[in-house]
Amino acid sequence: MTSSNERFYVQYRIFGTKNAALARAKHICFEQTVEFPQELIGGGYIRSHIIGRVESFEAADKKSFSAVISYAADITGFELPQLLNVIFGNISLLPAIRVEAINLSPSILNIFDGPRFGIRGLRRLLNVYGRPLLCTALKPLGKSAAELAELAYLCARGGIDIIKDDHGLANQRYAFFKERVVRCSRAVAKANRETGRRAIYCPHISAPSDEIAGRAMFAKKHGAGGLLVSPGLCGMSAMQKVSENNALALPVIMHPAFLGSYVVNPASGISHGVMFGQIARLLGADATIYPNYGGRFSFSMDECKNIVRGANVKMGKLRSIFPCPGGGMTLERIPGMQKMYGNDVIFLVGGGLFAPGASVEENCRYFLKLITKFPLTLPSPHRVEGAKRSSLPVG
Amino acid sequence: MTSSNERFYVQYRIFGTKNAALARAKHICFEQTVEFPQELIGGGYIRSHIIGRVESFEAADKKSFSAVISYAADITGFELPQLLNVIFGNISLLPAIRVEAINLSPSILNIFDGPRFGIRGLRRLLNVYGRPLLCTALKPLGKSAAELAELAYLCARGGIDIIKDDHGLANQRYAFFKERVVRCSRAVAKANRETGRRAIYCPHISAPSDEIAGRAMFAKKHGAGGLLVSPGLCGMSAMQKVSENNALALPVIMHPAFLGSYVVNPASGISHGVMFGQIARLLGADATIYPNYGGRFSFSMDECKNIVRGANVKMGKLRSIFPCPGGGMTLERIPGMQKMYGNDVIFLVGGGLFAPGASVEENCRYFLKLITKFPLTLPSPHRVEGAKRSSLPVG
Repeated sequence: MTSSNERFYVQYRIFGTKNAALARAKHICFEQTVEFPQELIGGGYIRSHIIGRVESFEAADKKSFSAVISYAADITGFELPQLLNVIFGNISLLPAIRVEAINLSPSILNIFDGPRFGIRGLRRLLNVYGRPLLCTALKPLGKSAAELAELAYLCARGGIDIIKDDHGLANQRYAFFKERVVRCSRAVAKANRETGRRAIYCPHISAPSDEIAGRAMFAKKHGAGGLLVSPGLCGMSAMQKVSENNALALPVIMHPAFLGSYVVNPASGISHGVMFGQIARLLGADATIYPNYGGRFSFSMDECKNIVRGANVKMGKLRSIFPCPGGGMTLERIPGMQKMYGNDVIFLVGGGLFAPGASVEENCRYFLKLITKFPLTLPSPHRVEGAKRSSLPVG
Repeated sequence: MTSSNERFYVQYRIFGTKNAALARAKHICFEQTVEFPQELIGGGYIRSHIIGRVESFEAADKKSFSAVISYAADITGFELPQLLNVIFGNISLLPAIRVEAINLSPSILNIFDGPRFGIRGLRRLLNVYGRPLLCTALKPLGKSAAELAELAYLCARGGIDIIKDDHGLANQRYAFFKERVVRCSRAVAKANRETGRRAIYCPHISAPSDEIAGRAMFAKKHGAGGLLVSPGLCGMSAMQKVSENNALALPVIMHPAFLGSYVVNPASGISHGVMFGQIARLLGADATIYPNYGGRFSFSMDECKNIVRGANVKMGKLRSIFPCPGGGMTLERIPGMQKMYGNDVIFLVGGGLFAPGASVEENCRYFLKLITKFPLTLPSPHRVEGAKRSSLPVG
């Protein structure tokens, strides 16, 4: 087998003294593979092939070390759940270890179709070039399907490109999924006929696992132009199956609900860039939603830049995707955000669109005007970041 | 609708000053429901029904406060993903908030069949009473299906009750799932014929989401006596569907892989008892594996007791389940563990069974002898804990 000697790489950050961190790096090689007493392994194939290898180990800062560990590609069985398990399964139960980056080998990347549209495909679909995309969320929970559809219509009229369900919209009696999808899809289609634009409505399909495909197909059939999926709620593998379903062939926007615990503690878990960038792309996200720096959540500017990097870093043929910062963004912040993110970004403004004093449609127009005032000559920092690639060894 | 005024309760621990924690508790009420500017909500049904309510707020210790927040049951749409979202979706992205306990209402508990066997049912199935159950894991990854089956035979001969796959066994070429299941199931059946016991083999079925049901059915058809599921790898909803599948009707053992980030930071995430006790039961686990205190992981004795409490606390008709501590346990530690856990526990010993100097079968016998030396009059601390119930208000 040509792939049997292929290896992939995970860069871990390990906190503690040098000796403790090095011992822990060596421990990870066993814990994530054989989970078996080292002294009982013997000297054969299991030791030489199955067990992870510390490929490099160096100080990251005064309190932590960076260890690159390689694993044989075939221990993943070439399936997402076991890939996640090798990267971080058991050691998620240990403090002071953080997954900083992953560098997957060709045979593993082959498991994934990746983002179907990515940045270029989504622009083509929406026919929007040379500026950031605009996104909003239909809310609040408790409104009827008719009320949400009216809102969707106004937002599409006002120039929003992507009108998604709030991720708290599931199949509640206030606005059952099917009625909501039919009404909101029609409302956006009507606005599109009036404006000549190609705005899309993206319903939230994070249903129980046996109903996800059905909801997604219903949405497709009734004119939804994309799908919102929260893999923390409905499962990462379930999201992969939705994005790769050729009968759907819709853009997929990923929401971070319930995934925050992986990233919020800087000395453990998984880096922002891996979770909301690299893993998002494995799952087939075309855009990845996360709370922007300076909003009501706690992500720093550096953590947001890390996401942009993960959304763009070279991963075989997997497309680059849109970062979609949101979380309490107001219209006033858009110019500053555009300066940092450049053009290849989706601005998600929710409640901020409903600020008093103007209609929703007028607020949307103002929003659109704000971002189109900026010329294309602005720097696109994440393009530059992406070009730098990861410092990980190539497998 | 009789259920429309029903509410359920989540106890959060919030870290910070009193004023900041109280402000955050009030913020959670909005963040987890409408995610909309408070001043724009108006005074109608959405404010009175949809938004969460702070039911109590008090100091937990010098650095944190305990807030019980109630939510209308019907905002969950009576589906697991949206229930998880209301409990902790967006606020997982914030530091300094921890879910300490959940108290679900009847209409929400009705979504779940819960553990099919639980402690009593699993004892009946295995025909083992009056002592802890014994469990081991087939490992290491890299062994062939024939080698793993030989190991399964020896363990079943030696008196192990539950012989599960190591959770790193998926569908790798060393021991493909189907061959492994057929061989290991046969091996355990053969040992059972020889010993008169009713040991079970539990293969790991955390496959990609469209293959889970197929693997589970294959396992059932070929004589597996139970299933091992890692919801962190294959999705919580997927696990619920497996456990509730009446065509399977097999005991389900839950593995914590990839879920550690929710619990390892004491000032954020989800408590051990909620994740590995209460949520495990919602997903239908009959036994919940976690790393024991004092092993190679970091859980404290109190955190382990918290799991035992979550495994036993009253949750409507949902059965109590077995705590299954493991993670580097050696035979020497069993007597001390039995003192803490009492009889209603499953001791998981993996690599420790392969200690040099004796055969696997002899080690298993020694293991069994160790735990049966202890009389039934030992205190069962978690039964007492369970009887205390939660201090949460009843919905």
